[in-house]
Amino acid sequence: MKRRQFLGAMALAGLARGASPRINAARLRQHLEALSVFGRPASGTFADGVSRVAYSDADVAGRRYAMSLMETAGLKPRIDAAGNIVARRPGAGASLSPVLFGSHIDSVPNGGNFDGDLGSLSAIEVVQTIDEAGIATRRPLEVAIWSNEEGVAFNNGLYGSRAAAGEFAAAELELVWNGVKQADAIRKLGGNPERIAEARREAGSFHCYLELHIEQGGTLDKAGVPIGVVEGIVAIDRYDVEIRGVANHAGTTPMPDRRDALLAASYLTIAVNEVVRREPGRQVGTVGQLSVTPNAANVVPGLVRMTIELRDLAAEKIARLAEEIRTRAKQIAAQTGTEIAIRPAAHHDSALANPEIQKSIEAACARLGLQSKRLPSGAGHDAQMMARLGPMGMIFVPSVDGISHAPKEFSRWEDCANGANVLLETVLERAS
Amino acid sequence: MKRRQFLGAMALAGLARGASPRINAARLRQHLEALSVFGRPASGTFADGVSRVAYSDADVAGRRYAMSLMETAGLKPRIDAAGNIVARRPGAGASLSPVLFGSHIDSVPNGGNFDGDLGSLSAIEVVQTIDEAGIATRRPLEVAIWSNEEGVAFNNGLYGSRAAAGEFAAAELELVWNGVKQADAIRKLGGNPERIAEARREAGSFHCYLELHIEQGGTLDKAGVPIGVVEGIVAIDRYDVEIRGVANHAGTTPMPDRRDALLAASYLTIAVNEVVRREPGRQVGTVGQLSVTPNAANVVPGLVRMTIELRDLAAEKIARLAEEIRTRAKQIAAQTGTEIAIRPAAHHDSALANPEIQKSIEAACARLGLQSKRLPSGAGHDAQMMARLGPMGMIFVPSVDGISHAPKEFSRWEDCANGANVLLETVLERAS
Repeated sequence: MKRRQFLGAMALAGLARGASPRINAARLRQHLEALSVFGRPASGTFADGVSRVAYSDADVAGRRYAMSLMETAGLKPRIDAAGNIVARRPGAGASLSPVLFGSHIDSVPNGGNFDGDLGSLSAIEVVQTIDEAGIATRRPLEVAIWSNEEGVAFNNGLYGSRAAAGEFAAAELELVWNGVKQADAIRKLGGNPERIAEARREAGSFHCYLELHIEQGGTLDKAGVPIGVVEGIVAIDRYDVEIRGVANHAGTTPMPDRRDALLAASYLTIAVNEVVRREPGRQVGTVGQLSVTPNAANVVPGLVRMTIELRDLAAEKIARLAEEIRTRAKQIAAQTGTEIAIRPAAHHDSALANPEIQKSIEAACARLGLQSKRLPSGAGHDAQMMARLGPMGMIFVPSVDGISHAPKEFSRWEDCANGANVLLETVLERAS
Repeated sequence: MKRRQFLGAMALAGLARGASPRINAARLRQHLEALSVFGRPASGTFADGVSRVAYSDADVAGRRYAMSLMETAGLKPRIDAAGNIVARRPGAGASLSPVLFGSHIDSVPNGGNFDGDLGSLSAIEVVQTIDEAGIATRRPLEVAIWSNEEGVAFNNGLYGSRAAAGEFAAAELELVWNGVKQADAIRKLGGNPERIAEARREAGSFHCYLELHIEQGGTLDKAGVPIGVVEGIVAIDRYDVEIRGVANHAGTTPMPDRRDALLAASYLTIAVNEVVRREPGRQVGTVGQLSVTPNAANVVPGLVRMTIELRDLAAEKIARLAEEIRTRAKQIAAQTGTEIAIRPAAHHDSALANPEIQKSIEAACARLGLQSKRLPSGAGHDAQMMARLGPMGMIFVPSVDGISHAPKEFSRWEDCANGANVLLETVLERAS
């Protein structure tokens, strides 16, 4: 804590030197608090979090509020065919590609008030600060608030940024989510599903993409470091596992004769944990879903279905860990008299941050007197879609206790302001 | 196999000596095959098993068939207030208490054709054999086909024999099972729920209770021994376990920071297995039921609920094993950063077979030239209710591969006949 207060004083010193403008921290906080009202639980407070699920009435109202902030910041927002809110501030070099930055404002059900909101409202705050300082940037600035980032529960999402990256399949428009067809939901936001292809951006159409976001993990908070420089968004491999034993009477089946699928699943769950933790690095492995058949107290389990999810910046590392897990699974199957089938269920490529942009962010931190730390993003972000089209960089601020996707999600106001100032510094440097 | 064929020849030699009558093996098989039709799957065969769930139309039809067999055997069946079918053959000593024997004919859904059926139809066959041999026993013989033994799925049951033991709570009559109120279901069988207390038998009202049953486990089949002499029906302790960790993002939560409830549950499931198997004996321990919250592939599990079930003839042994499991659970909780609560959910006393009756059964086996083996019954039986009222003994025959409560449940016809002959010998000895 002491270290961080000291660094805050350094930042203040930087401001006093008047090197470049600083965002209005009080205004940013006020905007975040005002946005939190849209989707707030009845008779709740800011601390009770938000349910601003994409395409809901709360989402529509929150977007309207964000657009009003854009207008106050001197921007003219428009809604693209995928429902993304975009707005451009011209640059001195009219033919140059813009610096693109933003985030999202939709939330998971019972989520918090910082995930997405901070990056979106900070992007607007950055433009307003630049505008108020009367700065003419060389490159145009473009703010994007991507639609439906959180998507279906935890698995999919990134709808708006996927459409912008051309990764949106036409068939998805027919899918029904929360009782509404995707096409109708996009229409509700002011998008145009018939012309969704028009939301697509070309590779190289922007100079770089920047996104400020809360970490959602506890690494920065534990380390007491105010700014995270994201190395990339991790690759994800998910496997569906089926373990076949023999369901049998729990009273009459002697222990040595059992072929207990849940016992095998237990060994495998521990093996996943051991294999992932055995070597250094920030890779993670999770068995998050598990179901037992017939699932009766007095029947030896005959069948277990479970998932294994592996994440790391290096796709080849998680592929290698998966191979080790397969080897362990074979031993476990032999030892428990079960059959274990592990099938790939999903693969998401990693999206690496651009090295130059990482250096730009670190330089911005240095100018602001803020300590920074490189780290991977274990969660997915719109930035991973933009990374397909051009250089990408992300700025993280600490999540208190690493809590996210929950009402208790919180990032200290001072950290939010620091993050927004790092975004401002980086935007100014990249746009010059 | 050789050994058993040899012993079968010995039994044949015994028959040739004319020491006592033998049951009609072909008739017993024919009766079992005829009963199997009631509740057989449409266009199925005997090998497709049976769904003669208690109180179903198939159950009512099967009971009617069993009563017709009783009449052919010279008995006059009646239905008591609890729906049990009972019939008495007078003895020479009219004032003596009867030798009571029987089983049940209801099945689990998709069950087999031997569980209960063998003991019920063998009891009738025994009376018919004695009748045809013109033998007047000293004690009366009483055959009982208990109603609704299988009960609710796997957990309860023993309705008819419980009523006979006075263990039937009045409130149970109001419970709805398979869409029918228990009272109405008993009425459907010809019972009288208003007078259910009249089904109760007094302690000491019978000389002894005998039940022939399939083992439902694989001990006899593996050992190649044709007759099991049951030492008793095991005690059962069931515990409900709740493991509280912290649900968190599977991407952003570093491995060392996790408090994974499913990882803890996996260690505990293995601990149950290890503790139960570490010492010699026939105790069993099962984690049969387990559910995960929130149960999403990309969320570290925050909550697991699971069951632990322990069985052994010695209640004090399973109490001691439970204490060892509690100790292990404390270590696991500390090691995984979770909280583990283990609460007793159910306790069933063991029901020991009477030592004299066990010797009678063994003597009968010896006279028949059949090898026998003492073993506990891991499953519950109507006999455990009768053990509350008087001396109890059970005869087991092998279940091929230990399969039961499934269409594949099978006991060799030769083994069925041997079991029925052991029942006959024991009845004759106890009734003399």
